[in-house]
Amino acid sequence: MDAREIPEGGRIAVLGGGTIGLGWAATYAAAGYRVAVADPDPDTQERLSDTFWEALPVIERVGVRSAAIAEPVWQADLDDACAGADFIQEALPERLSLKREAFARIEPAIGPDVIIASSSSGLSPTDMQCGLEHPERLLIAHPCNPPYLMPVVELVGGEATAAAALDTAAHFYESLGKRVLRLKREAPGHLVNRLQAALWREAVHMASEGYASVADIEAAVTEGLGARWAVCGPTAIFHLAGGDGGLGKFFDDLGPEVERWWADLGAPVLSETVRRSLIDGIEEATGGTPVETLAKRRDRHVADMIAAKRGLTKLQTENQIQNLPEES
Amino acid sequence: MDAREIPEGGRIAVLGGGTIGLGWAATYAAAGYRVAVADPDPDTQERLSDTFWEALPVIERVGVRSAAIAEPVWQADLDDACAGADFIQEALPERLSLKREAFARIEPAIGPDVIIASSSSGLSPTDMQCGLEHPERLLIAHPCNPPYLMPVVELVGGEATAAAALDTAAHFYESLGKRVLRLKREAPGHLVNRLQAALWREAVHMASEGYASVADIEAAVTEGLGARWAVCGPTAIFHLAGGDGGLGKFFDDLGPEVERWWADLGAPVLSETVRRSLIDGIEEATGGTPVETLAKRRDRHVADMIAAKRGLTKLQTENQIQNLPEES
Repeated sequence: MDAREIPEGGRIAVLGGGTIGLGWAATYAAAGYRVAVADPDPDTQERLSDTFWEALPVIERVGVRSAAIAEPVWQADLDDACAGADFIQEALPERLSLKREAFARIEPAIGPDVIIASSSSGLSPTDMQCGLEHPERLLIAHPCNPPYLMPVVELVGGEATAAAALDTAAHFYESLGKRVLRLKREAPGHLVNRLQAALWREAVHMASEGYASVADIEAAVTEGLGARWAVCGPTAIFHLAGGDGGLGKFFDDLGPEVERWWADLGAPVLSETVRRSLIDGIEEATGGTPVETLAKRRDRHVADMIAAKRGLTKLQTENQIQNLPEES
Repeated sequence: MDAREIPEGGRIAVLGGGTIGLGWAATYAAAGYRVAVADPDPDTQERLSDTFWEALPVIERVGVRSAAIAEPVWQADLDDACAGADFIQEALPERLSLKREAFARIEPAIGPDVIIASSSSGLSPTDMQCGLEHPERLLIAHPCNPPYLMPVVELVGGEATAAAALDTAAHFYESLGKRVLRLKREAPGHLVNRLQAALWREAVHMASEGYASVADIEAAVTEGLGARWAVCGPTAIFHLAGGDGGLGKFFDDLGPEVERWWADLGAPVLSETVRRSLIDGIEEATGGTPVETLAKRRDRHVADMIAAKRGLTKLQTENQIQNLPEES
């Protein structure tokens, strides 16, 4: 399969008008593509329009905004949305049967080399492509939420996915300013959700076992680790902790200590008691602020953090080019 | 024990002239305290002075800077550094016997109600206070590195630690602009290092099992999760993912999925092969840039991120006070 390049200003169909689907639609429309969102719910048009206009200023700050843009449009019918599409972004609910049904319905309406990118966070691409006439076109492109704000997109192929499809999709998302992560093989939760789950597991353990309040555990991340992780990844932190000897020195000096911590990490189960302690804890930590308010604040502040980080990356690149003495 | 309040401009002794000790010394001196650093190495004076002047502009941006400051001074001898001290910050190498010896030596030189705050990341405060004449004064105050930049300080008491000592220390660190996390009981790695270790364990697993490159795993955090975690803690993220129903709704809808991810997380051991794959991976991810350059860049960029975050928090507080409609 030579995957079809997605032409500038081409047609993109988004399957599903949930949060992720609408977020993708805004991303693509802002970049100058003609976007149709398929969803049976007639309220979709209004929510689609709202999301688009909310997302546009965010995309102008941290994403790719074309000069010529058009609002994405709603289609009640899958086939209508997909007719003539150059790229399909699937964002239906996380049920395998539902997704397979949709793929069976749209395949006759699209060219044989049109990529179907699934937003699934939990399903296997191998399971999903089973039954397709052209399974090699199917891959997972999983965003962080909201897709128009967060730079990372994870690409995962199934057993039948063509390398050309992954390359084309990677190139496409990069053209939208995204940082593409390519998984070499499937894993439950891909990469990003596994990392989130790993951190959260210990947070849940420490809270539910009464070592610290949820508010303090949250602050350990928001006031401490988060800003550092935005600059320095989880392995680089220990590479730097090794000083001139780097990660090798760190392993020599503190490898056993880290293994001792690893051995002591918790493995909580989400019992009723554990759930209750977390729910009470997060209510207290957030002072009972409604989720909608928190979510709006998060998106605005994360955009600020990403914009600040973009500024740093730009500066860093410039410094490298100019080889400023302070950097050496 | 009624712990002695640390008077403004009072005397602080720092035991140990390593990175952490020098970082604490700069923090305290910039806030107007008279600081002595005890270390047998005569090079300490120069490194102390260098650290202080490097740290000062950082502290001016993100910390507490007094109008009247004096450079911290070096003392070869523990007793000389501690004579008349109002507060002791221990930052010696991580060996229990070494720390205990130092405590035995300094106790006769300081008042009975002077707090000894250990920077230990790995030792137990109960083990450390054993043998002290006034064990109730000993607690752990563990910073993130460097202490003058990172806002978080973890407080952990041992079995004999007085509540008044913890309260006094909390108040003191808060007066320095720190966010104090209070552990309710001891745990290996306290809280921050356990959270770091939990995230890193899965990063090591995904890299060493060949699911993704170290560079992509680092980017999952630096380009994705980090900026979000700087704004929204590990539990709040799932609280918001539950929409109007919050964390309770999230548990109902996706609890089993999270438990499936948890069950699949890796438990790597730091074998020679695993170490080698990580060392090679981080070399590739950092393009072989020397650790010293990376560390300087990290500190500068983390300061930028923290300053940006401080701006947000300030803005948020102002918005709440003014009750702006966009926040509700």
